[in-house]
Amino acid sequence: MTDSAGPQADSTATQPSPEVDFRTSPERYRHWKLEIDPAEPEVAHLRLDIAEDGGLVPGYELKMNSYDLGVDIELYDATQRLRFCHPEVRAVVLTSAKDRNFCAGANIRMLAQSPHPWKVNFCKFTNETRNGIEDASANSGQTYLAAVNGTAAGGGYELALACERILLLDDNSSAVSLPEVPLLGVLPGTGGLTRVIDKRRVRKDRADLFATRSEGMRGKQAVEWRLVDELIPKRSWDETVLERATEAAAGSSRPAPGSGATGIELSPLESDEDENGIRYRHVEARFDRDRGLVEITVHGPEGDVPETVERIHELGADFWALAMTRELDDLILRLRTNELELGTWVIRTKGDVEDALAFERVIEQHSGDDWLVNEIRHYFKRTLKRLDVTSRSLIALIEPGSCFAGALLELALACDRQYMLDGLMESDSDEGPEEGEPAQLVLSSSNFGTFPMANGLSRLGSRFWGDEDTLAKLRQETGRRIDALEAHELGLVTDAPDDIDWDDEVRIMLEERASLSPDALTGMEANLRFVGPETMESRIFSRLTAWQNWIFVRPNASGPEGALRRYGTGQRANFDRKRV
Amino acid sequence: MTDSAGPQADSTATQPSPEVDFRTSPERYRHWKLEIDPAEPEVAHLRLDIAEDGGLVPGYELKMNSYDLGVDIELYDATQRLRFCHPEVRAVVLTSAKDRNFCAGANIRMLAQSPHPWKVNFCKFTNETRNGIEDASANSGQTYLAAVNGTAAGGGYELALACERILLLDDNSSAVSLPEVPLLGVLPGTGGLTRVIDKRRVRKDRADLFATRSEGMRGKQAVEWRLVDELIPKRSWDETVLERATEAAAGSSRPAPGSGATGIELSPLESDEDENGIRYRHVEARFDRDRGLVEITVHGPEGDVPETVERIHELGADFWALAMTRELDDLILRLRTNELELGTWVIRTKGDVEDALAFERVIEQHSGDDWLVNEIRHYFKRTLKRLDVTSRSLIALIEPGSCFAGALLELALACDRQYMLDGLMESDSDEGPEEGEPAQLVLSSSNFGTFPMANGLSRLGSRFWGDEDTLAKLRQETGRRIDALEAHELGLVTDAPDDIDWDDEVRIMLEERASLSPDALTGMEANLRFVGPETMESRIFSRLTAWQNWIFVRPNASGPEGALRRYGTGQRANFDRKRV
Repeated sequence: MTDSAGPQADSTATQPSPEVDFRTSPERYRHWKLEIDPAEPEVAHLRLDIAEDGGLVPGYELKMNSYDLGVDIELYDATQRLRFCHPEVRAVVLTSAKDRNFCAGANIRMLAQSPHPWKVNFCKFTNETRNGIEDASANSGQTYLAAVNGTAAGGGYELALACERILLLDDNSSAVSLPEVPLLGVLPGTGGLTRVIDKRRVRKDRADLFATRSEGMRGKQAVEWRLVDELIPKRSWDETVLERATEAAAGSSRPAPGSGATGIELSPLESDEDENGIRYRHVEARFDRDRGLVEITVHGPEGDVPETVERIHELGADFWALAMTRELDDLILRLRTNELELGTWVIRTKGDVEDALAFERVIEQHSGDDWLVNEIRHYFKRTLKRLDVTSRSLIALIEPGSCFAGALLELALACDRQYMLDGLMESDSDEGPEEGEPAQLVLSSSNFGTFPMANGLSRLGSRFWGDEDTLAKLRQETGRRIDALEAHELGLVTDAPDDIDWDDEVRIMLEERASLSPDALTGMEANLRFVGPETMESRIFSRLTAWQNWIFVRPNASGPEGALRRYGTGQRANFDRKRV
Repeated sequence: MTDSAGPQADSTATQPSPEVDFRTSPERYRHWKLEIDPAEPEVAHLRLDIAEDGGLVPGYELKMNSYDLGVDIELYDATQRLRFCHPEVRAVVLTSAKDRNFCAGANIRMLAQSPHPWKVNFCKFTNETRNGIEDASANSGQTYLAAVNGTAAGGGYELALACERILLLDDNSSAVSLPEVPLLGVLPGTGGLTRVIDKRRVRKDRADLFATRSEGMRGKQAVEWRLVDELIPKRSWDETVLERATEAAAGSSRPAPGSGATGIELSPLESDEDENGIRYRHVEARFDRDRGLVEITVHGPEGDVPETVERIHELGADFWALAMTRELDDLILRLRTNELELGTWVIRTKGDVEDALAFERVIEQHSGDDWLVNEIRHYFKRTLKRLDVTSRSLIALIEPGSCFAGALLELALACDRQYMLDGLMESDSDEGPEEGEPAQLVLSSSNFGTFPMANGLSRLGSRFWGDEDTLAKLRQETGRRIDALEAHELGLVTDAPDDIDWDDEVRIMLEERASLSPDALTGMEANLRFVGPETMESRIFSRLTAWQNWIFVRPNASGPEGALRRYGTGQRANFDRKRV
């Protein structure tokens, strides 16, 4: 470890941050085992069996089932595949394949050696994956149960907290704990404090006691305090866990057993990348390092809109809506992690408005009755939520040839600002098929609640928070084409310059954005994007993450004598005692 | 300015933080003029006229009506006196006595030279004062109006945002702005972002544009965007402002004009202090620097409980409930600002339970019909809220001779943990009047909503969040004495050790608390204390303050090349471009 303190750790961390690839598949997993017993196809088992030497970055060993980003990338992949490839799975048991260790949480040496942005991005991704687990329980009919067969410490317990039921082995050693405050001088980074009080409704003075006691709790007291749901003796462990999983499976909204529903294959995601950008089939990103931005274009479907649900199942991962969502999801994760200095994301769409609306209709008509369409809807919702919590300035440019209609309009509404060209650029008039067609938006029912934000509001509900009249008026406008001046009038876009002003206005706006303090922008956007109500999920990002960010840069945690740096050295941390 | 960066600024700020005294009175104000025209006694004018050379700390001049903590201490005093000394005042016009400058917000040089805890404490206090202004509008029948007769920048506009109505002079130069992000690389620190979107319901993309535009907005666009309520031409300024104030006064819940209600005098608060503590008449604090804690004792009333409302008015500031609240309020502020290293506050009460409950009854019976009792209720509520957002560990010790009953029980419920002695200490049995009386708690209706937290919940509602059954059961228990074991059983206390365990358990608990990272405790407590719903007020502390805390320690703001440090030097800030 170096002698550097606090924010300086960003530049002097012992290991450079590697380029991260988020793509994997079960046969490549090093840390998880995804098992479905053909005799019990309703229940999947996700067993954590971390390879100590399998860290994503050199410098630490993943002892005691502790994880790093690489482990969580596999977990994310597993949760996605359970949803898309296994319609028969109605309950998921998350457990450990190691003896006496359920999971020790995030690897401390990894945290101690990592620069600040790495820690923050790591926490964000792990939070999203845990929220995704809760989303599967709530919206996919796949209820997660944690079968805690050993110690679940810190992030290990937080993983259990994301499950709907926590079963604890009654063996005098299995325990749950949040030792971050007493041992590391940081906060539980993946929702621990929030879920303990908001989800499990542990009384807050008990939560205080629990979260300051490094050894945590076990046995009956853990049940009494609601930290776990049930103690199960060793002799009946496997059988009771399976029984609980089967009970959870009984109420599932997944296709009925024997319905013959078959999963789709999530084929490997292909992309071309070079120093100038990343190109997928439907999504592309061009880097502009001089201007500190990425230009992202999402291409709409090109005439291949399926007419029936059967055809969607046939198309599977090739169905445009799913393919585009997978690409966008992957792009967001890679840009966040690998391109820290590209601070502004300029988002465009390209394609036919009518074809884009066809996606809409499929979702609208079938997400209630078809498990795959339901999955696609919720996956696009989760991907939009990733945008909402991305610490980049998001700017939508709505230009001729774009297809910001219905679900795709959500991309623009997720942005901090929306600029729409009024009319055509002079140069556009002799270009291809969009000739003579100025940009238009189309609202659909998708914009009124199909893809809620973390705070439970639709993006329009958030944009017009407290203004029910405008929302009611906008509902009347669904289905028709809205041009730039009208969109501006309706409040759907920030500005609608014409071709004379467009280039200058956009250029100046992007230059200005690039000139501002990246930190101040992060804080401002984190405040403005989430107006109004809060949910457990929004609080995890807004409150917990903000405090954790602060603590991560404080010398008491990350300084050379801080608790996070000194953990495991045998030396005690040396604290600045001033309370702030 | 020094070369130190980020957190290091704590120890190398150019000026040591002075010992701050929060007591003042109008005749000593240097920065505000509080005026009530006898011809229009319903409307008070608070005019900001900052003395440039009146800074609390050397090193900066308070130019352009910019403020520091000293200015805000006077504002707080003025808002308190308006409530207690002026029952006739039904509207307050907050304006500037300077030409063309309403208020330039917090002084930048002051911020740049201040250590981190000073900045955070300063923001917290100013936030509390602005929340108090909103509380006066909502609960005291004193509606605040901002008469913005010049530029209102940053904290200047945030002060206006705390008012119910913002009137802007239409003179081509008066404007409102939040230039923190573009000029200083920090966030508006006193609720600006939150109030713009949550209170004034400015659309969030517009809020983004506004908060990144250093010159702000004026004229019609400011009205269209809801940043202000009304533009008023210069020629009719005074008359229209008074008219709006009179309109606001018309709906007030204050005593009717001509009712003969007279205010009370807020006599100077007296205290003795030395290096070991602070003693007021009803509240005392003993410092234990070795153990890093303060032992706070609140004494209950001593038999002087008034029987009638008239007697309360006669007693005025000598009425125990008001005197105790003023002392506690002052103590909290002084400890927060002046005693940063005393990280744990141990809170006790001492007195007769029945007398304490008499306070209860007066509040309960008369806060609806008597303006002064109403003020006392809301003042105690605000003082409890200060505890809720205090970055110190709060521990209630409930011992024989204590009077945690009704309103005073809120002190214990505001704590992170509550320890109650079961039975008597052996040594207690031959001590004075409490002989043979173990500690007891009493619930009253005050514990179910009279003193709500910032999130709108009662402290019991917060403690038993989501557990309506327990809350209903506790409502049945009001009025009767509850001993330690029963209190433990009911979930009202964290633990109830007997005399054999008490000393050790308390000692170990306090030692353990003192050993933990002060930063981690702050973050943990800020998360656990506010379970459940959020309001604008809670979001200002939980989200905005957390992000601001983070930004305040980042090199991009507070480093030697950061925007906050370089402001006014003619040099541009040099940013680390990584987005986190």
